[in-house]
Amino acid sequence: MSQSLFERHKDTLDRAVNASRTREYWTAYPESPSPRVYGEEANKDGEAAFKAYLNKNFEIDQPGTIGTAGSEKSPYGFDLGITYPKVDVAVLVTEVEALRQGWAKASIEQRAGICLEILHRINKRSFEMAFAVMHTTGQAFMMAFQAGGPHAQDRGLEAVVYAYEDMVRTPAVARWEKPQGKRDPIVMEKHFTVVPRGIGLVIGCSTFPTWNSYPGLFASLVTGNAVIVKPHPGGILPLAITVEICRDVLKEEGFNPNIVTLAVDSADAPLAKDLALRPEVKLIDFTGSTGFGNWLEDNARQALVYTEKAGVNCVIIDSTDNFRGMIGNLSFTLSLYSGQMCTTPQNIFIPEGGIETEDGHKSFDEVVAALATGVEKLNGDDARACAILGAIQSEATLARLEKYGAGDNVVLASRSVPMEGFENATIRTPLILKATDESSYAAELFGPISYVVASKNTADSLEIVENSVKNNGAISFGIYSTSEDILDSAEDVACRSGVAVSFNLTGGVYVNQTAAFSDFHATGCNPAANAALSDTAYVSNRYRVVQSRKHI
Amino acid sequence: MSQSLFERHKDTLDRAVNASRTREYWTAYPESPSPRVYGEEANKDGEAAFKAYLNKNFEIDQPGTIGTAGSEKSPYGFDLGITYPKVDVAVLVTEVEALRQGWAKASIEQRAGICLEILHRINKRSFEMAFAVMHTTGQAFMMAFQAGGPHAQDRGLEAVVYAYEDMVRTPAVARWEKPQGKRDPIVMEKHFTVVPRGIGLVIGCSTFPTWNSYPGLFASLVTGNAVIVKPHPGGILPLAITVEICRDVLKEEGFNPNIVTLAVDSADAPLAKDLALRPEVKLIDFTGSTGFGNWLEDNARQALVYTEKAGVNCVIIDSTDNFRGMIGNLSFTLSLYSGQMCTTPQNIFIPEGGIETEDGHKSFDEVVAALATGVEKLNGDDARACAILGAIQSEATLARLEKYGAGDNVVLASRSVPMEGFENATIRTPLILKATDESSYAAELFGPISYVVASKNTADSLEIVENSVKNNGAISFGIYSTSEDILDSAEDVACRSGVAVSFNLTGGVYVNQTAAFSDFHATGCNPAANAALSDTAYVSNRYRVVQSRKHI
Repeated sequence: MSQSLFERHKDTLDRAVNASRTREYWTAYPESPSPRVYGEEANKDGEAAFKAYLNKNFEIDQPGTIGTAGSEKSPYGFDLGITYPKVDVAVLVTEVEALRQGWAKASIEQRAGICLEILHRINKRSFEMAFAVMHTTGQAFMMAFQAGGPHAQDRGLEAVVYAYEDMVRTPAVARWEKPQGKRDPIVMEKHFTVVPRGIGLVIGCSTFPTWNSYPGLFASLVTGNAVIVKPHPGGILPLAITVEICRDVLKEEGFNPNIVTLAVDSADAPLAKDLALRPEVKLIDFTGSTGFGNWLEDNARQALVYTEKAGVNCVIIDSTDNFRGMIGNLSFTLSLYSGQMCTTPQNIFIPEGGIETEDGHKSFDEVVAALATGVEKLNGDDARACAILGAIQSEATLARLEKYGAGDNVVLASRSVPMEGFENATIRTPLILKATDESSYAAELFGPISYVVASKNTADSLEIVENSVKNNGAISFGIYSTSEDILDSAEDVACRSGVAVSFNLTGGVYVNQTAAFSDFHATGCNPAANAALSDTAYVSNRYRVVQSRKHI
Repeated sequence: MSQSLFERHKDTLDRAVNASRTREYWTAYPESPSPRVYGEEANKDGEAAFKAYLNKNFEIDQPGTIGTAGSEKSPYGFDLGITYPKVDVAVLVTEVEALRQGWAKASIEQRAGICLEILHRINKRSFEMAFAVMHTTGQAFMMAFQAGGPHAQDRGLEAVVYAYEDMVRTPAVARWEKPQGKRDPIVMEKHFTVVPRGIGLVIGCSTFPTWNSYPGLFASLVTGNAVIVKPHPGGILPLAITVEICRDVLKEEGFNPNIVTLAVDSADAPLAKDLALRPEVKLIDFTGSTGFGNWLEDNARQALVYTEKAGVNCVIIDSTDNFRGMIGNLSFTLSLYSGQMCTTPQNIFIPEGGIETEDGHKSFDEVVAALATGVEKLNGDDARACAILGAIQSEATLARLEKYGAGDNVVLASRSVPMEGFENATIRTPLILKATDESSYAAELFGPISYVVASKNTADSLEIVENSVKNNGAISFGIYSTSEDILDSAEDVACRSGVAVSFNLTGGVYVNQTAAFSDFHATGCNPAANAALSDTAYVSNRYRVVQSRKHI
């Protein structure tokens, strides 16, 4: 039965393997929410499915249930009213540990087939997922559809691909025949078995509950581990739907559905530490604060811990032959999802003496003014602004915006944007500040807050950025320059500090966006993340190979 | 120039990649010390080269030298009298950090070619290395030649193979072309650069200075890291020769030879902790005690730490259809290098009710007596005993042997074996003890000390072994049984506890031996080691990929 799932999705797997090796453009799951792709009724059905969850209990028949939990609020201004099973951590972990061997013993093909089927079904429910992501993260609908749906699914598939390729690198059976001169050779048969680590814990974040969780979820699952998904209290529904689909497919294929379970908690009674310290938990995937990421790395020593934490992303402006394109690109980058992306630039370095452009020299102040005007105009129309900005996910981000907006270094003030139909939505345009000294911009200010920084010159900008990436971490880095030498220097800085760099983005690609199968997300070698999504290092230690040998 | 090294050794690389994927028998470096393979003069020249090192200073022109260190003693009873550069850790590490970018920027092919050339040259000096290994480790000559020479070289090549395959999995350049409906596609050029972690520290052991160090050395080196080799004070010479060869090839190819350096210390003034805690050290490979391995894992948090520590290896005897073969195989296994291998069995479980054999039932006492007699007879002839046993490397092992030999549970006493020409050699036959309770055999007693343990039955043996592997670690596990069901259960135990298992070894393969490219050494999932030699997980996190992208 499972074999047929593998066969059914083998072409997708093969094409994904090829894409990850060529790193050319490819996607398994269409990013366009067009009715021609997903069907005429898909949007309507998805919204109805989302609404059907509201003000009800989301049933999951899993071990250790002790009541309900959940109090998600849509950043568009209403309570979701959904409750989920609340778990007794000790009971859940103990029972999952006791039942996980069935999945551990499944063949690589069975597990890959099931993961591919899960992704396929999640894809079919992309509209439902889009509404769930929109009303937990605050992402505008289009972004919730793409980043929460097909792009997240692609990242899940990518993890499956890397794990699959690495697992099948070692054959299941080998015949070993050692010559012995004139005597008969020594002949042995050797069996190699992929053995999972144990239980994988996936700790989700509030802004990208699916996109940031799927790589760890699928990497651990396809390598034979049981997975417990612990969503952020603010972003449960997208992962609850995901877990339900995982369980459906596992059950249909004859496996215990409790191989994938959901552990919902609340800000008042968090479960992440209890889960993370359980001896049975051998893998942890976390996206969130540096504080908790470091805590996990320091304390969950029985587990391999993969973290994506805070970073301070930088853009350097040296010169450009497309000033308007640059300003347009940066304006959109700063505005998209109100800067609530781990890849949004925070610090923009401009030489104090200004820059050269296709229209001649522009002073520092002129560049800053152009950027402020660009952001302001982009978000000038309320309806368009809402579609770009989405809503602010957390109270903490709103408070931060208010605090930093009250200073005397405001270049562009943030404004509240009204949204039709969602009068309580928390929609805010970006705040741009002028940096006074380095200490002001060295820490991450998550959300739509960025600094323009006057550097002595571009060499100074590069040096500051190199140190910033090494010390504060970063996931993205952009530079604008017409000089090949400067771009080469920037690439050296990127390599030494360990951050991906984008050159002269002036069109439809933004520094805060990455494409699965082509762009790695994070590098794993600066403080912002200890792993990249996805590469061999991300998957190959989630299992080990145990061999047997005998003479034949 | 380096390109030509890659081309010169490309066939070896390709064949090694293939072997690691099929896991069939293959070796790059012949294990036979035959004059037909290595030349008529090779043995004589090797011995002369070894003797030329004695009572001299081993010159290495590297940074931070502050005098000399070294006081190796041959377990065959004489002082080597060799001194080596003593280093100032801060100066050495700082200078290596400052110069390592040249190597980091070399191409994958350049680095692979140089590593292959280094291995090739080490191979040509296998006799010299054999004498160096023999007179530091105490291994008998044949073993010193094979395990210290070609087998170690194969393990080094294996690490190169895994790292090379993983590095070239990502292309250096990709063209990414995203369709935009009726508009022109978005086209980008992306560059992917392998970026090493920094400095790799390789901490050698006294019993297998080359075999246990080459995987880490070559894995770190081929991925672009600089490497500092810190030998065990008792086993410096084999690694000093290795470092010298690395430096020769690097220099010839136009690289700074200080990419590979030697940090010699003494038991009185150890350097390992100072080196391990340096922020520039990002990778550590260690073979040795559980205490120090755990210290490294707990304290060198800035580095990825790969450890091989103590373990307690077990053999279960359930039944056999080749009693004589089993006893012969086990007798050799216990005797080889006086049990000073991390893979030598320590605890042998036999049902208290005895076992079935091709000659009918044998009681527990009969099996024990046969094993004792087998070991005694194998080592009955002094010359043959010396060739199998080698000498005891450390005072600690000699003291342990004396202490445990004084108890009232001795089944076979250890005897001192005289060796012609080396009257002060510390050669000892195995000590076999009868276990009284579980606490007596739960910890590793490194060296030629083993326990026979009466279990209730084989199910009991399997349960004890599963818990022992999980709690105390193990690198090898052997079982003798004529029952397929029992062997299946043993394979399940092996998979659940994470240890390689050998079934019914009665001929020329021993449970304590593994073959590169086919057998993994350790699994990485029990307390004896956190990594396997070699697999993708062992190499893939030693570097990261940094990308750049631009529109074209």
